Amino acid sequence: MQQGFLIQVECPDKPGLVAAVAEALAGAGANILDLAQHSATERSLFLLWARVEAPVDAAALERGLAPLAQRLAMRVRVHPSSRRPRVAVLASRTGHCLYELMLKHADGHLACDFVGVASNHPDLEAAARHFDLPFVHLPHAGDQAAHEAALQAQLRAWDAEIVVLARYMRVLSPAFTAQWPERLLNIHHGFLPAFSGARPYHQAWDKGVKMVGATAHFATAELDAGPIVAQDVLRVSDRSSVEELVERGKDIERRVLVEALRLVLERRVFVHQGRTFVLE
Amino acid sequence: MQQGFLIQVECPDKPGLVAAVAEALAGAGANILDLAQHSATERSLFLLWARVEAPVDAAALERGLAPLAQRLAMRVRVHPSSRRPRVAVLASRTGHCLYELMLKHADGHLACDFVGVASNHPDLEAAARHFDLPFVHLPHAGDQAAHEAALQAQLRAWDAEIVVLARYMRVLSPAFTAQWPERLLNIHHGFLPAFSGARPYHQAWDKGVKMVGATAHFATAELDAGPIVAQDVLRVSDRSSVEELVERGKDIERRVLVEALRLVLERRVFVHQGRTFVLE
Amino acid sequence: MQQGFLIQVECPDKPGLVAAVAEALAGAGANILDLAQHSATERSLFLLWARVEAPVDAAALERGLAPLAQRLAMRVRVHPSSRRPRVAVLASRTGHCLYELMLKHADGHLACDFVGVASNHPDLEAAARHFDLPFVHLPHAGDQAAHEAALQAQLRAWDAEIVVLARYMRVLSPAFTAQWPERLLNIHHGFLPAFSGARPYHQAWDKGVKMVGATAHFATAELDAGPIVAQDVLRVSDRSSVEELVERGKDIERRVLVEALRLVLERRVFVHQGRTFVLE
Amino acid sequence: MQQGFLIQVECPDKPGLVAAVAEALAGAGANILDLAQHSATERSLFLLWARVEAPVDAAALERGLAPLAQRLAMRVRVHPSSRRPRVAVLASRTGHCLYELMLKHADGHLACDFVGVASNHPDLEAAARHFDLPFVHLPHAGDQAAHEAALQAQLRAWDAEIVVLARYMRVLSPAFTAQWPERLLNIHHGFLPAFSGARPYHQAWDKGVKMVGATAHFATAELDAGPIVAQDVLRVSDRSSVEELVERGKDIERRVLVEALRLVLERRVFVHQGRTFVLE
Repeated sequence: MQQGFLIQVECPDKPGLVAAVAEALAGAGANILDLAQHSATERSLFLLWARVEAPVDAAALERGLAPLAQRLAMRVRVHPSSRRPRVAVLASRTGHCLYELMLKHADGHLACDFVGVASNHPDLEAAARHFDLPFVHLPHAGDQAAHEAALQAQLRAWDAEIVVLARYMRVLSPAFTAQWPERLLNIHHGFLPAFSGARPYHQAWDKGVKMVGATAHFATAELDAGPIVAQDVLRVSDRSSVEELVERGKDIERRVLVEALRLVLERRVFVHQGRTFVLE
Repeated sequence: MQQGFLIQVECPDKPGLVAAVAEALAGAGANILDLAQHSATERSLFLLWARVEAPVDAAALERGLAPLAQRLAMRVRVHPSSRRPRVAVLASRTGHCLYELMLKHADGHLACDFVGVASNHPDLEAAARHFDLPFVHLPHAGDQAAHEAALQAQLRAWDAEIVVLARYMRVLSPAFTAQWPERLLNIHHGFLPAFSGARPYHQAWDKGVKMVGATAHFATAELDAGPIVAQDVLRVSDRSSVEELVERGKDIERRVLVEALRLVLERRVFVHQGRTFVLE
Repeated sequence: MQQGFLIQVECPDKPGLVAAVAEALAGAGANILDLAQHSATERSLFLLWARVEAPVDAAALERGLAPLAQRLAMRVRVHPSSRRPRVAVLASRTGHCLYELMLKHADGHLACDFVGVASNHPDLEAAARHFDLPFVHLPHAGDQAAHEAALQAQLRAWDAEIVVLARYMRVLSPAFTAQWPERLLNIHHGFLPAFSGARPYHQAWDKGVKMVGATAHFATAELDAGPIVAQDVLRVSDRSSVEELVERGKDIERRVLVEALRLVLERRVFVHQGRTFVLE
Repeated sequence: MQQGFLIQVECPDKPGLVAAVAEALAGAGANILDLAQHSATERSLFLLWARVEAPVDAAALERGLAPLAQRLAMRVRVHPSSRRPRVAVLASRTGHCLYELMLKHADGHLACDFVGVASNHPDLEAAARHFDLPFVHLPHAGDQAAHEAALQAQLRAWDAEIVVLARYMRVLSPAFTAQWPERLLNIHHGFLPAFSGARPYHQAWDKGVKMVGATAHFATAELDAGPIVAQDVLRVSDRSSVEELVERGKDIERRVLVEALRLVLERRVFVHQGRTFVLE
């Protein structure tokens, strides 16, 4: 019986790689349904994404691709389409990102299972419950290490694979972010790398910028400097108050966060030396 | 010695086509440098674009792909990158599209050779000459058939392969457009299919639309209804006069026209049953 | 005690109108906090919007402006900011527009009171209740006149002043729309005036357009031809399926509908001879 | 005989200012044709822009407004529309910004007189001459002070009022920029405040940003930190090379620079504590 897979391939660039991968997939019994590739000559980097179907399971497909991977120093990842990643949400008080995630998920736009919402505030419990999602209130009692330990325990209890920071308003420690490499997706309410840190809309207003932005990135040890997954901007009038920038910004934040999660779930995001390459 | 080629493949969709094409290209000695494909399930249509290099000439490469093409009812087109298409421009009085074409060409953004400008008015002669381009004034003496015959003769004399209507203000007859299937690129100053025909900015103003657009399309027998290659819009304020819409529109027209020509030259445009599929 | 007002002025254009209105407002004791005006010379039309505060009530302010209005054939409307319009929602099965309205309202972005949701389907009851909004199921039993009579009765019972069609999937009769001139706001899932009528995304896909749009307009007797209040587009790839156009379209629909309602509530929308002028 | 004027008013905010200005203008015999105002409550700042006509000259109009200005600590500027500012261009090797300025000027979109192009390289002479513009080659012989003295002498000889840096590739000294407060318009090929300084496209590529931008700002003593007049972005694919970012960036640079000059010429730009307020 045919099963669907998403394939990610990453290796040093050289001629003939598309054909080599296509041949190896065919040899492993897989039909390519959709394929995107890119050679980043700036870094001699070859990237390939494919959606395939094959009459075998993931382990068999990986075994079929192993000789090629070994010969060409390739990193090959095989993701069965039937296995929907388990995604947890960390939030605080404002619900716009949480609602957006839930609504797009209900529409079938996000191929994952949301496993729960953990928050340092109780405000979003009704929202989570409305979408039949477990909600856990983990208050921050002043001890960051204890708080993060509670978060980790909850995420483990949920068996979460990806964590979305949906305007979670605490800076997480390097020890925490190190547990979730390329799996901890944050939304920053500014057009990074400008306006990193606190109060980006106030910073933007004071500079008189003509557009506000939002940036979804993987959280790393360095605040707001992790690889950028998605970003977008909205034009704003100079008549806007800071409050209006915030309001406009919320619209672009939730849009960008959902877009970034979609790209991650479709396995279109490659991380290499501090930046992403998104293949669409 | 390696030569570059752009390959276009088009056929009924079925599984395994990417691998089949990749294998046939490898068998013909070609290395795939870049590849994009799409299966339009709405029409059971498979489309593939590739940039390859091979140590053979175009004829040899085509022969190498012929068995595959025959077996799978594929339309395969092989374009040597070294052969820059000869592009003629038809214009009238306003120069914004002509300048944009020339400036982007000078920047190396358009991989073609411009062979000349023919116009029913003398106004743009200095502009053409500034860019070392032949200019021919072919006035319209009231007889459309005679005018079009003169145009055709000039285009033949230039050995033109693609013709760009850069705000050429005459409606061409079906007899003329039939000579240039998928090779006659027009810019319409409106967001087609809305506002086809004359005075689209006046139409747009009267409807109070909130954005003006421009559409580059292949000209066909039916006015402004040919396959759309590129389009874009600009937001406009309701305070805009018709003249301001026209002025804003000129900016978007020239941008869209150049973008469309780039896509055509990169062989990324497929036409199927009245619409295009642009593979990027 | 100071009260806030939104003022709309509309009259034939002539010199000196800004000063005349400013003077009349000052004479009536009103301070101008914010003012926007436009002279649409194409129609010799003068439009002015102002946000003012005054130590009187609306009736007194209107009396103060009456002599000016009479002298210059002005239409002057005075809206007390403290009186939030009562807005009813008509919906069917899909909830994306309803959620967007509720969430932006909860954020304080829409200065109105939502009074209830009426629907020809039961699907959205939980969504309405989540936001503490009355929900009434008015099934369509095949008789359009009876259905519309039930809708009107419900809207009257709610004392609704503005009605938002949040993807309500029934065509309303001219008799119905005539009851709600400039107060019945519809969202069309296409870039009007292109793609009016049914299945606009299928129409758009078949034409191969490069962007999908949405248009909020006042519903009138003629289907999808009422004055346009807001519209926007999203760029789409030619790889998109019709389903993906629909999904992208839902994002732009809800955004445009909320934007249009905001403009209506801020009294920035003027309707004149089939089009709007939005003063911002 | 009626003459046109553009009026800029700037003062501490308080109630009644619109009416006060409108009354003073009427008292000075001026008819308001168009008016925009904004109260930036963050800074208790009132700004007003108006287009008026009056049967007097600028000096008389200024005298008429002087009592009001004095009473309310207003800065009032009166610009006769008939006096087109004299604008000089400084450029280096790449012509895309220069052509854009010339073409939009030829279209009547920029209400100024261009007086000449000065450059540290000879490359753009033919372009300047094509538009009948004086071109002066002022080579940089290694001595920045001498070079800037030559530039200043030339700008004085031209009697320039505004200077546009159209990709002029030298950093100007604080002594130079101090001569041209709010009159020296620069285009930076990045989305400021991100990517200031050299090679912004390389910086952007290395960060993997999803859009490239351009920023027109008034040059000040601090490099790339002057008040922002206009900015815009273009979405870029992660498949883009640095060269493609540069090419895309050139399109947005020229567009933003022309837009900024238009706003400056229409006197819509107010500078206050390091940022601009653009009233449209």
